[in-house]
Amino acid sequence: MPNFDKVAIIGVGLLGGSIGKALQERELAKEVIGIGRYKGKLSHAQSIGTVTEATTDLAEGVAGANVVVVCTPVETVADQVAQVLEHVGPDCLVTDVGSTKEAIIRDICEKCGPRASQFVGSHPLAGDHNTGPDFSRADLFEKRMVVITPSDQNELEPTVKIAEFWHALGARTILLQADEHDAALAVTSHLPHALATALALTTPQELLGLAATGWADTTRVAAADSTLWRQIFLANREQVLAALDHFNVQLTALRTAIATDDGDKLEELLFEGKKIRDALGN
Amino acid sequence: MPNFDKVAIIGVGLLGGSIGKALQERELAKEVIGIGRYKGKLSHAQSIGTVTEATTDLAEGVAGANVVVVCTPVETVADQVAQVLEHVGPDCLVTDVGSTKEAIIRDICEKCGPRASQFVGSHPLAGDHNTGPDFSRADLFEKRMVVITPSDQNELEPTVKIAEFWHALGARTILLQADEHDAALAVTSHLPHALATALALTTPQELLGLAATGWADTTRVAAADSTLWRQIFLANREQVLAALDHFNVQLTALRTAIATDDGDKLEELLFEGKKIRDALGN
Repeated sequence: MPNFDKVAIIGVGLLGGSIGKALQERELAKEVIGIGRYKGKLSHAQSIGTVTEATTDLAEGVAGANVVVVCTPVETVADQVAQVLEHVGPDCLVTDVGSTKEAIIRDICEKCGPRASQFVGSHPLAGDHNTGPDFSRADLFEKRMVVITPSDQNELEPTVKIAEFWHALGARTILLQADEHDAALAVTSHLPHALATALALTTPQELLGLAATGWADTTRVAAADSTLWRQIFLANREQVLAALDHFNVQLTALRTAIATDDGDKLEELLFEGKKIRDALGN
Repeated sequence: MPNFDKVAIIGVGLLGGSIGKALQERELAKEVIGIGRYKGKLSHAQSIGTVTEATTDLAEGVAGANVVVVCTPVETVADQVAQVLEHVGPDCLVTDVGSTKEAIIRDICEKCGPRASQFVGSHPLAGDHNTGPDFSRADLFEKRMVVITPSDQNELEPTVKIAEFWHALGARTILLQADEHDAALAVTSHLPHALATALALTTPQELLGLAATGWADTTRVAAADSTLWRQIFLANREQVLAALDHFNVQLTALRTAIATDDGDKLEELLFEGKKIRDALGN
């Protein structure tokens, strides 16, 4: 079990706050320092127990850290990592929690040269449409999957250490190439978000009284933060567009079966979809 | 509060079973008789307390009933209602729980002539992807909306009595024309189901390990019974096709914003969608 003198978390929201709480509850770190831009928000995050210390000074915050976790929106991750690497020692490892990986890793390699080897990308498949430290919990990562996306710059050792970091928080991990990650998540996460949003946009407010569980479930992720998701869609543009194209093929097949009154084909498609959904469980 | 000597339920699944349990728990009926095709299934439904009596003989089952609720799949509702009306007295009211209404009411009016006035259509917005009497519960309708769709044949009194029936089970009701109901539900229920199915079909099984809450929520209704949903889509074909067209306009707008890297437009759409979703609550 890893044991750290100091872990720094940049961006103490739902994910950053949950990492902080988990590190403390599991007694994995002596000091958990939260770093952010706004003193008021940081004080609040500290007061509810997400971190042991807090600062708006990045250089001071990451100095002497064993691990730095960048939990800012995807558009800012690469810049944050570049700054962090200027202020930490050669043994410090840096990771992130961004929902897209290829653009982030490419930017970090460009900005940081050989020091990019200290960064190993992570994406915990946890959290939901609620954001902010008030929703953080120490068990957020328990039994959840974290995708780790080492780059060509990464040696085996830092990759294993970042995996161990997540295991220590209760998560499972899987290693994927960044582009494989982005293609997969375009289907399993970004596409559902686009559909949920488009379905909500299709629904006049006056019909909400007639929305039952099905509408509520299918649109739930549309309640997530619009600014964060704008960045995710644009950072993974090509893969999201490909996923939308694949989706349109399937929706068109359903539509055609309905339009042509082809009940057998329609039931076959519904049943195939049900089998895939059933394979996931609840 | 209505009080019935005998209520007959045709089709004792999730909805029929829940109506039976609610009638008993609220002491609204002396006798609740379940009617179905299969003795074994009926005995099981009776043994878990959904009904007080059970029979496979429709004529015997509905004889002397004050209210008959037809809870069979939408394709068979009109035939069942026509049969029921041959065996009940002129004061007996008949309703259903079908997810589509216009085709059912049109068929009943054609089949039954003036006796169609004893039928008032209902659609409780309750239940979920689980089916069968084992999931039935007495509180399924509490605070849920039931749409009541009187036809031109219906006088006010039977319409009010059917509304009172649902109120007695704890539900709220709203009156809509059948075609208004079908257009609304095409958006709030049938469209979500089509999207959930198409999303599941877009997702290769080997990616399910990378599916988090968003995918699980967005696809949940795809686990529902394929045969029931085949019937719902085909019974409401025109309205479903119109809903799919409206959806495609919205999804195309999202796609275009992503493809053209128009972040402001993308965020505007995401935010509009979020506002509609937030208006529903959880």
